Amino acid sequence: MTSGRDAPQHPHAGTIPDDAAPKTLVILGATGSIGRSTAQILALHPRAFTVAAVAGGRDAAALAKTAIALGAQFAALADPSGYAALKAALSGTGIACAAGPEAVEEAARRPCDLVVGAIAGTAGMRPTFSAIRAGRTIALANKETLVCAGAAVMAAAERHGAKLLPLDSEHNAIFQALGDADWSTIERMTLTASGGPFRDWSAERIASATLDQALAHPNWAMGPKVTIDSAGLINKGLEVIEAHHLFGVPAEKLDVVVHPQSVVHGLVSFADGSVTAGMALPDMRVPIAHCLTYPRRIESGARKLDLAAVGTLTFEAPDLARFPGLGVALAALKTGGGLPTVFNAANEVAVEAFVARRIGFSDIVRIVEATCEAAVAEGLAPTPTDVDEALAVDHVARERAAALLH
Amino acid sequence: MTSGRDAPQHPHAGTIPDDAAPKTLVILGATGSIGRSTAQILALHPRAFTVAAVAGGRDAAALAKTAIALGAQFAALADPSGYAALKAALSGTGIACAAGPEAVEEAARRPCDLVVGAIAGTAGMRPTFSAIRAGRTIALANKETLVCAGAAVMAAAERHGAKLLPLDSEHNAIFQALGDADWSTIERMTLTASGGPFRDWSAERIASATLDQALAHPNWAMGPKVTIDSAGLINKGLEVIEAHHLFGVPAEKLDVVVHPQSVVHGLVSFADGSVTAGMALPDMRVPIAHCLTYPRRIESGARKLDLAAVGTLTFEAPDLARFPGLGVALAALKTGGGLPTVFNAANEVAVEAFVARRIGFSDIVRIVEATCEAAVAEGLAPTPTDVDEALAVDHVARERAAALLH
Repeated sequence: MTSGRDAPQHPHAGTIPDDAAPKTLVILGATGSIGRSTAQILALHPRAFTVAAVAGGRDAAALAKTAIALGAQFAALADPSGYAALKAALSGTGIACAAGPEAVEEAARRPCDLVVGAIAGTAGMRPTFSAIRAGRTIALANKETLVCAGAAVMAAAERHGAKLLPLDSEHNAIFQALGDADWSTIERMTLTASGGPFRDWSAERIASATLDQALAHPNWAMGPKVTIDSAGLINKGLEVIEAHHLFGVPAEKLDVVVHPQSVVHGLVSFADGSVTAGMALPDMRVPIAHCLTYPRRIESGARKLDLAAVGTLTFEAPDLARFPGLGVALAALKTGGGLPTVFNAANEVAVEAFVARRIGFSDIVRIVEATCEAAVAEGLAPTPTDVDEALAVDHVARERAAALLH
Repeated sequence: MTSGRDAPQHPHAGTIPDDAAPKTLVILGATGSIGRSTAQILALHPRAFTVAAVAGGRDAAALAKTAIALGAQFAALADPSGYAALKAALSGTGIACAAGPEAVEEAARRPCDLVVGAIAGTAGMRPTFSAIRAGRTIALANKETLVCAGAAVMAAAERHGAKLLPLDSEHNAIFQALGDADWSTIERMTLTASGGPFRDWSAERIASATLDQALAHPNWAMGPKVTIDSAGLINKGLEVIEAHHLFGVPAEKLDVVVHPQSVVHGLVSFADGSVTAGMALPDMRVPIAHCLTYPRRIESGARKLDLAAVGTLTFEAPDLARFPGLGVALAALKTGGGLPTVFNAANEVAVEAFVARRIGFSDIVRIVEATCEAAVAEGLAPTPTDVDEALAVDHVARERAAALLH
């Protein structure tokens, strides 16, 4: 096949040569789960990367520690009240710092080769747009930005020449499975779901699940928001909406299959019956490493998949009766307009209330569904065309969802 | 991602437009299993293809019928004694015909967009080289050509600008799983094996297996040679050697895993822990259709994969104690020189004798191994650099293997 390949080799493809210039990164969400995994990979390749900026949310001490460990030039904390602590912790290191939402956006605009966009929730939206407007390549883990303002994100990326690399494991797997296929030849895209900790539970037992039970994900070590979203399959609904925007695939071509072993992460089906799949042991370092040097490859530190050792992979259709959140998400995608934005906002409010032990697990989907229904009844906002419109829809939905908490 | 993709779209990618010019095919091995499946696909797309030539082995009536059904311009039968029957059967159809090995090579040289190279065994070697020397694109199912003369095939393809598309299901799956990846970034390539009808059998029971038992493949409907090769995992050994040549991957990066459901056909592993896989229900129409219009996609007529319906996929390491033929093949690849050619020739002789009920099932690997050992002991021929050298090594090995039958 060396002479037999139609598809041209990518000029930059290949493993990183030892004498390659280091790649400059900005890491948004540096103190979170993805940020920490990114730091682990960087530690394996000390000469391959430099870090222009790191940004975190509220934990000044953790951010300062990360900035020092990665040799970052600039550290930005979203919470303005943490400025003094951050400044003190970085004193004498030569690392510049700032605090407040604008500081995070400044970090997002710093010149670099790749932005790792890993802030959880809608808090990641403005920084992501800042990076897009700067025309950066962005490894995007912040699914809420795409769910809340997907059309606006993709249009802005097109306008500013920004490139998005999917960092979520399912979307990264699909991106890898796509290879050089023409996206118009795709018949179906399938995201797998582990099924979460409640996969085998009865509806009654799920309804009374505790916070600790929802946080006990069988396969993935992730932050609390996404772990709770996973327990109710709402996370998979968000990911289907994300895939719709990232890959430009209509809702009817998107599919979910429950796969408890989390080894196959995403699949692409073609008209001839061929299916390509992206697989890996469930470890976020795999998609992160893939994005960090795409289209090159580096060691991620993750264990390698040995199918004979894994032995058995199982697949089953998702049960929308026990996991209604997935159905609500898919309906929001099909309805369109501002409804995915409403869905996402209501879910963030409800999950926060569940984490604060103010509501039960089944109240999450109840509040999300009621918020969506109210938004439709009151005349649905159109598809947001920019970040401000998205945040306006988000704001109204949050207030509506918050009112339902009482 | 519409704006976010580094890899360029292939200019010819996409589904076939209704007004596209038909693609001209030459089908070598038109009356065999692959040839018949190809004809089924063509029947689904009556305006998409024209057939310049078909070639078959000994069955004049079947070849004539195929030529008429496909509207071929020329029909070539390998067996010269069938000429009169072929001529009579095609009388009045306007289809030209000829018989003898040279006629098949003539068919292989007919101008076309794609040659389907599906003659079983070393009989396919000279026609395949004819197509290569004519600079054709060849969908190659004839694994023996690559096993017997892989280095010569790849060098000739390079020299004559011929393109090889892998038609074997495992290699086609790997080709699809590779996508736009730089082949130098590959850490491991894995071919799956169904394990065949004797997967769970004891060594003793395998040794006394009958012809009918060996022909009862659990998943694939294939010709008798490849079915018997599959029963002893010798087929997988031939395929590993084939992959070595097709993809330019060294023996130590090639791997086999037993996967009884035959849904995952091939996998590619990368340094970061990512694995891409090619999947489909076990139906040869899938890889055939993929090759017929590559990089476009057409309906193949095969059932579509539904993982939730399949339910469970299992994987296990191959047992080289019960299936020693795989180990002998891998050793032949590692030894190199003319040994893979010897291996293939001895196997063809032994399988033919088993089909003729002259030897037992376990005699196949005994004869293959003894022929290989004798070839090494007598001073191994170097790697064949052209078809004549390969056939010379093949000839000596056949005589040696035939002598071991008595």
